[in-house]
Amino acid sequence: MDIDHAGIATDDAAGLADLYVDLLGCEHVHSEAFDGMDVHFLDCGNGHLELLEPLDDGAIARYLDRNGPGIQHLAFATEDATVALDRAADLGIEAIDEEPRAGAWGHDVAFLHPRDTGGVLVEFVEH
Amino acid sequence: MDIDHAGIATDDAAGLADLYVDLLGCEHVHSEAFDGMDVHFLDCGNGHLELLEPLDDGAIARYLDRNGPGIQHLAFATEDATVALDRAADLGIEAIDEEPRAGAWGHDVAFLHPRDTGGVLVEFVEH
Repeated sequence: MDIDHAGIATDDAAGLADLYVDLLGCEHVHSEAFDGMDVHFLDCGNGHLELLEPLDDGAIARYLDRNGPGIQHLAFATEDATVALDRAADLGIEAIDEEPRAGAWGHDVAFLHPRDTGGVLVEFVEH
Repeated sequence: MDIDHAGIATDDAAGLADLYVDLLGCEHVHSEAFDGMDVHFLDCGNGHLELLEPLDDGAIARYLDRNGPGIQHLAFATEDATVALDRAADLGIEAIDEEPRAGAWGHDVAFLHPRDTGGVLVEFVEH
């Protein structure tokens, strides 16, 4: 699977977007309020960065409290997230989302438990 | 800049490589002992995963002690890492490596201080 995006937790998504545009030459292509987060997507050519700022006390706020800002998850593009979840289950990997659900930017997404994937919060993204 | 790779700290790089090959369909394309680490690269189509297992008490061992396993850095491909470092300096971002140095797999690399880049350990990679 291609790398779809890296998800970055921050307390200033718009400001970090501006910094990464200047530093990395990525293009700021999308922003929306979604599921209690201010979400910004940057197109870096072969993949995206997803900047996530909490607007409530949900998962990203808890991540920032525990870890501070930084890379929170890594997403991989799949043509069928259900098939990808079935494959994960066959490998004994527990899913956080047993079925794909609606994610930011109109994508279907599903996350796996990082304890089964080397500490990495892996997301499947179906466009 | 394209996303070159995500760097993942682990206490079992070879085992995690096998898992990601099965889970994500990435191809295990390179491994070497480098700078006190067992380093494995997976080709995921549009970019790589770099799995880093400490063989000494260096930076990856310290990362694992502090954070446990997970995504340690994010690397971006540049045609000229010196120009990329100059641009970072112009933006007031402190570099860990003031000049590019030899990295794994024969690449020239340079890291930036995560405190200036939203908590993300950003690496420039010149192939």
